[in-house]
Amino acid sequence: MPYERLQAHRPLLEQTEAVGHAVRAVYLYSGLADLAAETGDRRYRRTLDRLWESVALRKLYLTGGIGALAVGEQFSGDYHLPNETAYAETCASIGLIFWARRLLDLDCDRRYAEVMEAALYNGALSGVSLDGRRFFYVNPLASEGRHHRQEFFGCACCPPNLLRLLASLGRYFYSAAEDELCVHLYGAGAARLEISGVRLRFVQETDYPWEGRVGLEISPERPVRFRLRLRVPEWCRNWSLSINGTSLSGRLSRGYLLLDRTWRPGDRLALDLEMKPELVHAHPAVGTAAGCAALRRGPLVYCLEGVDNPGLPSIFIDSARSFRPVRVESGPLKGLVLLKGRGWRASRAGWEKRLYSDRAPKLEPAPVIAVPYFVWDNRAAGPMRVWLPRPPAGS
Amino acid sequence: MPYERLQAHRPLLEQTEAVGHAVRAVYLYSGLADLAAETGDRRYRRTLDRLWESVALRKLYLTGGIGALAVGEQFSGDYHLPNETAYAETCASIGLIFWARRLLDLDCDRRYAEVMEAALYNGALSGVSLDGRRFFYVNPLASEGRHHRQEFFGCACCPPNLLRLLASLGRYFYSAAEDELCVHLYGAGAARLEISGVRLRFVQETDYPWEGRVGLEISPERPVRFRLRLRVPEWCRNWSLSINGTSLSGRLSRGYLLLDRTWRPGDRLALDLEMKPELVHAHPAVGTAAGCAALRRGPLVYCLEGVDNPGLPSIFIDSARSFRPVRVESGPLKGLVLLKGRGWRASRAGWEKRLYSDRAPKLEPAPVIAVPYFVWDNRAAGPMRVWLPRPPAGS
Repeated sequence: MPYERLQAHRPLLEQTEAVGHAVRAVYLYSGLADLAAETGDRRYRRTLDRLWESVALRKLYLTGGIGALAVGEQFSGDYHLPNETAYAETCASIGLIFWARRLLDLDCDRRYAEVMEAALYNGALSGVSLDGRRFFYVNPLASEGRHHRQEFFGCACCPPNLLRLLASLGRYFYSAAEDELCVHLYGAGAARLEISGVRLRFVQETDYPWEGRVGLEISPERPVRFRLRLRVPEWCRNWSLSINGTSLSGRLSRGYLLLDRTWRPGDRLALDLEMKPELVHAHPAVGTAAGCAALRRGPLVYCLEGVDNPGLPSIFIDSARSFRPVRVESGPLKGLVLLKGRGWRASRAGWEKRLYSDRAPKLEPAPVIAVPYFVWDNRAAGPMRVWLPRPPAGS
Repeated sequence: MPYERLQAHRPLLEQTEAVGHAVRAVYLYSGLADLAAETGDRRYRRTLDRLWESVALRKLYLTGGIGALAVGEQFSGDYHLPNETAYAETCASIGLIFWARRLLDLDCDRRYAEVMEAALYNGALSGVSLDGRRFFYVNPLASEGRHHRQEFFGCACCPPNLLRLLASLGRYFYSAAEDELCVHLYGAGAARLEISGVRLRFVQETDYPWEGRVGLEISPERPVRFRLRLRVPEWCRNWSLSINGTSLSGRLSRGYLLLDRTWRPGDRLALDLEMKPELVHAHPAVGTAAGCAALRRGPLVYCLEGVDNPGLPSIFIDSARSFRPVRVESGPLKGLVLLKGRGWRASRAGWEKRLYSDRAPKLEPAPVIAVPYFVWDNRAAGPMRVWLPRPPAGS
């Protein structure tokens, strides 16, 4: 169905499901969001909502990847999210970020920011190696060790698109309206913005995404009243906020803390977002994650690599309680935060002369080391898994 | 590596791993087995053993399918047996049957017959629809419902190869040597054979593979002494044998019951092979079956189809104890034996507005109906699974 591949199978306003070429789709939807902003036409918003739900509730990898099928580089059916053969093109995650960013301008709703952040730190960022020299076009959630980044290639696609995204990253942090400033993302940096005709400097001091403490300094030219919305990520169970040393409890409005006050030069906010390792589970209809769980901490999805975990793919995980964030002190992953804890490994004893058996493999305790998904394939080649089976009852 | 694809990357006698185009490989190995039989050269046998172990212990689907990769229609690496993208060409299973049959002539060892029978009743037989009109080229172990048999096609490959196999099926049942007769397979039918210069008629009365009782009548022209070897399948835990009404216990020699006696016209054997539904598990290195189990009864691998099991792919199975064989009385599956029992289904309650969650899906009891793998895709299109997740501990 070539028209479907091009999202041209019916008028866009009648489309209810994200289909066809994934990159093309989210670029198209981004254009529709621009049109909605420009015209205020509610029909565009309703179409955007339907298509967003189609993607975010039924066709989105945990990593923020979209477009499950290599054939046609396109979306698959609802909940069909194969891991090893995931296409999840780097550019599709980037396009999803474009789209989510535009929707955040229309509507400061956390659900868009969650997806934007997940794609940014996982499925898009995995597109480039740690040394910045090699690129993934395709971002699977499982590998047997034969999928590797390649050097910058001529195709005017993922590599330059990723460079553009990273070079323009500042645009994704804030939405500024006449009398309102929304903070969607956290990360060290300084921004110059203008609210209610007053220029202000907005500084974030933080080690996010490795730590959840964020210091914010707001320096308007002169005192100015506006609504500040600070996103509290959905993965965050506990958080606290203080202004100039005085703690306060705000209310969440669609996932954003709303602070309506007059801001003065040098006002300082301290936001502390609890960032604990946790297990994530997929919708029951996602067959490729049935009985499995993934490790996540903050916005980062973690994965296991064979280089750290002998026995992969036979590593099982039942809880995130034993996992601790550990900063790497040296080597190629220096500065990154790994998760170290305990899981289970299927013993190969007794399996030397059989491929199948009426007896299930026995599980034995095993140390587990997880690295951020975007970091995989930067060291020795080997298997990789995002989704790990949970230990079966009685095993 | 095109030479590897053609198994021409090194001299055949130096090859230790099954690689390249799967159909071509097993045809080549079949030729090598013929050469080994013709020449008695032990080097050929050693090569055959190594290649057999490479396939049977590391590259074989439970269904008797081989050749995991669609790209190049070839073998993948050890233990890499993806389900949904399995190539497992019908012709590759047929070629595996050719090869196993030749090895059985060289060496009456059950390990070859197990694979031959598994391929015959599962990965090869699935190649044709129940009405004999439509054919699978590719035999995956999981489907989202978009993989279907097609009508007889021009390619001189799977369809005619399958017809040839079924039309010559008798050749796969017996190996007859000068003073020995090996019975590899069971199934209703009559064979005319010659042992020690004496012609004999060998009749099997049985409903195998649906039932494990096999009546054998041996009618030589005149009394003749020879060794009869009856295969006791590896899946069979308990069996009994009687000759002319007198029960006897034989010893197993490489999986075959050895009966050395003078056979007289009208001698009757009754072999009873216990055939219970059981769960099968895969080697811990098979990541695509980690935490999963499959249903098998006798030589038949079973699968679940969406048409019988609402909620698939979220069906979990923890035991085969509740499963009973049930003969279908009417409809398109009339005469076939299904397995009916109890499993678990992941509840979708609470998942309406989320694709991922820190809470695992809850499992609730669910009836399960399994059909023989070869029967799938003969009714309504929908998901299919051979490997089912086992319920995680605490779920």
